[in-house]
Amino acid sequence: MDTLPERVWRLTLAYDGTAYAGWQVQPGRATVQGLLNDKLAKLFGAPIRTQATSRTDAGVHALDQQVSAELPAIPPIPPGDALRALGKFLPDDIRVLAIDEAPLDFHARHAAAGKAYTYLIYRGLLRSPFLGRYAWPVAHPLDPAAMRRAAADLLGEHDFTPFSVNPRSDEPRDPVKTLHRCEVQELDRLLMITVVGNAFLYRMVRRLVGYLVAVGLGKLSPEGTPALFAANARTATFETALAQGLFLDRVFFSPEPLSTYRRTTLPFLDLR
Amino acid sequence: MDTLPERVWRLTLAYDGTAYAGWQVQPGRATVQGLLNDKLAKLFGAPIRTQATSRTDAGVHALDQQVSAELPAIPPIPPGDALRALGKFLPDDIRVLAIDEAPLDFHARHAAAGKAYTYLIYRGLLRSPFLGRYAWPVAHPLDPAAMRRAAADLLGEHDFTPFSVNPRSDEPRDPVKTLHRCEVQELDRLLMITVVGNAFLYRMVRRLVGYLVAVGLGKLSPEGTPALFAANARTATFETALAQGLFLDRVFFSPEPLSTYRRTTLPFLDLR
Repeated sequence: MDTLPERVWRLTLAYDGTAYAGWQVQPGRATVQGLLNDKLAKLFGAPIRTQATSRTDAGVHALDQQVSAELPAIPPIPPGDALRALGKFLPDDIRVLAIDEAPLDFHARHAAAGKAYTYLIYRGLLRSPFLGRYAWPVAHPLDPAAMRRAAADLLGEHDFTPFSVNPRSDEPRDPVKTLHRCEVQELDRLLMITVVGNAFLYRMVRRLVGYLVAVGLGKLSPEGTPALFAANARTATFETALAQGLFLDRVFFSPEPLSTYRRTTLPFLDLR
Repeated sequence: MDTLPERVWRLTLAYDGTAYAGWQVQPGRATVQGLLNDKLAKLFGAPIRTQATSRTDAGVHALDQQVSAELPAIPPIPPGDALRALGKFLPDDIRVLAIDEAPLDFHARHAAAGKAYTYLIYRGLLRSPFLGRYAWPVAHPLDPAAMRRAAADLLGEHDFTPFSVNPRSDEPRDPVKTLHRCEVQELDRLLMITVVGNAFLYRMVRRLVGYLVAVGLGKLSPEGTPALFAANARTATFETALAQGLFLDRVFFSPEPLSTYRRTTLPFLDLR
């Protein structure tokens, strides 16, 4: 049985996921959690347990990853000093934006009321030499109006099994989730899709984006969303969007912002 | 004495300069010209001479590099096929955007009537994990109004020696150039400086940006530009801006656009 830790900090992280095999510690691979845990252990002289709100996949980025860290009762350094030290020790593609004291029962995943993810698609015959790590290149024309039509029917409470892949073995989950927002915006050659939900199945955001792209390309009907939910089965009629275009955008610890959150700038321009 | 080549193509290139020791071929180092020449030689079965309008430094990016390529009289493949083949052979951070037939006396550097460069500065106490390769991080507040005041006095024909460094030995140049535009724009946390001129001395754009940043930080007076020109000497009172924030933005083959060119989107979102 777990006992409460002696002290808990909440860390806010932003990272470029390109160089990492995802958030979660994996033996012999560079991960964001692995690097963070190493640096925290050096600061505190003891191993520190961490939990993130979103276990981002390899290549996925984060603007606002929330992390709970279980610390010794009397941390040898205050949060402000730890922030500066982590800024020095961590590589440039991982930034700790804030460290706050948290209640002893704070757990970054369990405490989250919801999350926003933003996905970038680069529209152009030629791939951009600049956006390869931050966007999915789609050469054929996309119809944003059709994508918005299909997106409207994704909103609300549904069994999202049609938009999932086999879950990670250690994480059985209720497939019924609530999608509060699904917005498709155009910015020059980029198409920006922001989804907000109370929780997401494994790879669900990338499956939703892959579905909307298939609709935008005219491969699937924009009216087909209800039939997909009714069939309630995984389907191979659309691709899973590439990891590189995905950003964990915001973590919400109260439900109010879930129905109003709107992204107004490109994710990589915007640090909290 | 040089004779005219048998056939000339004009190539338009965009590249992320992060991984390269600049445009120009250097033995034992990865350069954009080196890679392009290799791939052209493979396509044509013979070495191909190339010249670029701008010999960008290590880490500098290009949206619109113009390249002249001297070809055999009867190229074994047409320009469209060469474009597709180069797209396959070149790495993702170098894109050939267009290939056009050019007059036999076309030389990308000599034919240029002027160039625009855009420089990005990221303003924030914490470095962005996303923009490290595309912007100079400046933590202290910058005053854009003061920078614009200093920029206004840079316009026109001047001996730009105060904004140069020792030139590359093989390229003695007239230090008198005409700066047609110098615009400072704010986009969220980015400050975007676009300069347009008929020609630029070695590292001149990065020296101009370094000067404007020193003014923006309050280290130099926004009224001091005329005195710098009057002294006509190199100075160490301001830094040279980092290479990573610099984009060769546009090459102009006629003088008309030099006084009107304006960048309206972030350079890395905008392929010609």
